[in-house]
Parts: sequence; structure tokens; C-alpha cells
Amino acid sequence: MSDSLSIVLFSGTEDKLHAAATLAVGAVAMDRPVNIMLMFWALDAFRADRIAKDHGLAYDAARPRFNEPVDPVGEIPWLKTLRQAKEIGDMTILACSGSLDVLGIDASTLDPLVDSSGGIATFLMAAEGGQILFI
Amino acid sequence: MSDSLSIVLFSGTEDKLHAAATLAVGAVAMDRPVNIMLMFWALDAFRADRIAKDHGLAYDAARPRFNEPVDPVGEIPWLKTLRQAKEIGDMTILACSGSLDVLGIDASTLDPLVDSSGGIATFLMAAEGGQILFI
Amino acid sequence: MSDSLSIVLFSGTEDKLHAAATLAVGAVAMDRPVNIMLMFWALDAFRADRIAKDHGLAYDAARPRFNEPVDPVGEIPWLKTLRQAKEIGDMTILACSGSLDVLGIDASTLDPLVDSSGGIATFLMAAEGGQILFI
Repeated sequence: MSDSLSIVLFSGTEDKLHAAATLAVGAVAMDRPVNIMLMFWALDAFRADRIAKDHGLAYDAARPRFNEPVDPVGEIPWLKTLRQAKEIGDMTILACSGSLDVLGIDASTLDPLVDSSGGIATFLMAAEGGQILFI
Repeated sequence: MSDSLSIVLFSGTEDKLHAAATLAVGAVAMDRPVNIMLMFWALDAFRADRIAKDHGLAYDAARPRFNEPVDPVGEIPWLKTLRQAKEIGDMTILACSGSLDVLGIDASTLDPLVDSSGGIATFLMAAEGGQILFI
Repeated sequence: MSDSLSIVLFSGTEDKLHAAATLAVGAVAMDRPVNIMLMFWALDAFRADRIAKDHGLAYDAARPRFNEPVDPVGEIPWLKTLRQAKEIGDMTILACSGSLDVLGIDASTLDPLVDSSGGIATFLMAAEGGQILFI
């Protein structure tokens, strides 16, 4: 049994990126290794020329609809949180090679936070025996 | 190794709340401890003045689009199911303090089903060694 | 501790079905047992008369919004991938009986890839001690 926390990061909206980043920084602060695999819309969000832009929110799909305006949402500094996780602990970010192909993204255009690209097997082996989340 | 089931509950729509509630009640019925942490849109859904309202569905994002009308969906009694889980077993619901800040929600305005508020570290420690889901 | 990978498959869009199928085939290729439970929109996507149709994408909810057109997305052969997982390894697909009721779907109208229908307890027992994802 491993104490690692692994995250299949699929979504590319600010709120879900924030959830992933805060879970990652919480885990490394407890000295747990963290493995993140970027798939689909998260990959898109990690392109070097897009990573610092506003990635929108998932509330259209995830928020109650009361025909009320959306309440204002405070600052969501997920990128700063994720960089901090990398500085203080053992966190590896993998770009899923299958998703790179489907989206036609070249791995060299991703932000330097991404360590390498690889397949599902690479990720599953790193995640072995620990906890996994799909976000 | 723990037999606990922990849920990061992020989404606030009826269908996802139902999925979380049925998994929670299934686990406590098997005598497993359940830890739920409310983030973002799930927090919004657990405000005392909103929890019993209709929270909509995630089908715009999660359902096939065939240019057909949506099939009628039956009753989704997730709140009743969740209260039942609390009655029959060991289930703790934590409000994520970071999400409370981002959304500007005061913890005292949440439904009494919520036991307390706390950070990611509190949740990860309770979840240690068990299974975790992100919903 | 079990080396099984279990997936609560809730979403019914091509991109999330692809994520689930590639994780499933990756796990069976490593000789790990895979248990999938279909809930809600994934159940809808597995109806025999719909499974081969285009199920759309979750990008409205999961993709950054830059007021730019969506980049073209390549082929997503998730169904082929999932059939392959079933051929090469030990993969079981369960239809959630509660979701069948809510959506008014008769289990006999589902694709033959689905092995049986059952409740949450059946799924949680099969998943015991392994890793679980909610997709």
C-alpha cells in the first residue's frame, strides 16, 4: 500500500483546477507523493499560451439553477497553488499521450509545469496502491 | 488500510447529489465510515435556504445530444437518502473552508446536515487509507 | 488489499467515455480486474440503439472559454477500446438498478456489453479494497 495521491485531471475550468490544486498541495504538505495525469480539457488548459488565462467555471453544469444570477466568485489562484505544490513536495505532472493525439496538441507547447508525456500504463503504475481521483 | 469511503463533493446538481447520496448510504449500510467534503457548487446546494429546492441536472454536460427532447426523469430523493445515511451509520460532512471563502458563504448558513468546516488536510487525514471519489 | 480498478461511470459524453475506456483497457492489460457501474447519463449512452451514435462532448462544462471556436477533436473510438478491454481481460459492467428506475430504462434494452444490473452494494463489494473512480 502506497500513500500516494493520484489525480486524473480531465476538466479545464478554474473551479475544478482549483479543487485539484488544493488537494495536491494538501497531500504534498503531508509528505505524500502526488501524480497528476492531464487528459482532454485539462491538457488544453495547460498549453503555455493559455495556462494563465481565465478558464471559466463549470457552474453551467455543476451549479443549481434557480433563475437567479450567479453569486460573485472570489479569486481562484489555482496556478499559484499548483506551483507551490511542486516547490514543496514530490509532484509529477504527466500529459496523456492519447489525449495529445486526439486534440492535436504538441507536448512541447505545454507549460513547463508538465514533466513529461506518457500513456495510461505509466500513470497507473505510478498510482499503484494509492488513492486515485478523477476530476 | 481503512474501509472508509470518502467523497469530495464538488457538484451541486440533483443527479450528482443523488449519486453521492446512494453511494454514501450503500457504504454506511455495510458499516463503513463515510467522510464527505463539500466544495464549490455542492456547498452552494447545502445552504439551509436552498437545500430542499430543485438543483437542476448536469445533463447539458453529461448527456448525449441527439437533438431529441430529454427523456423524463423520475423522482430523485437524494436529501432523504443522505439524511437516512446519517441516521443509520457513521457519516461526517465537512464544509471546505477554502471554498467557503471563494464563494463568500458563511458556514452558519449551511444546513445542519453539515457537521463542521475545515481544510483539505482535515479531510485527507480522515480519508487516509480508504477509497476516495471526486463527484 | 485488491488490485482492482472500479469505475462509477456517470457521464455519457464521448470524451468521458473515452477516458473511462482507456483507463479500463490500461488496467486489464496489467492483469487487474475492472468493475464498471453505469449510472444516469452513462446508462442512457449504453442503450443498444444509441451506443454507436455520437454522444457529444462535455466541453461546454469542462473546457476553457476564450470566445474562440472549439479546436477540432480527433476520432474517439471509446466503444472499440471498451470491447477490446472485455476481450483481453476481466471486466464486468453493471447497470445501476436505481438509475434504471429513475430514467425509466428497461435493462433488456441495454447493449450486450452490460453484464447485469444490480444495486450499489453489489458494486461496492466488488470494488472493495481496490481503487475507485467517479467519471
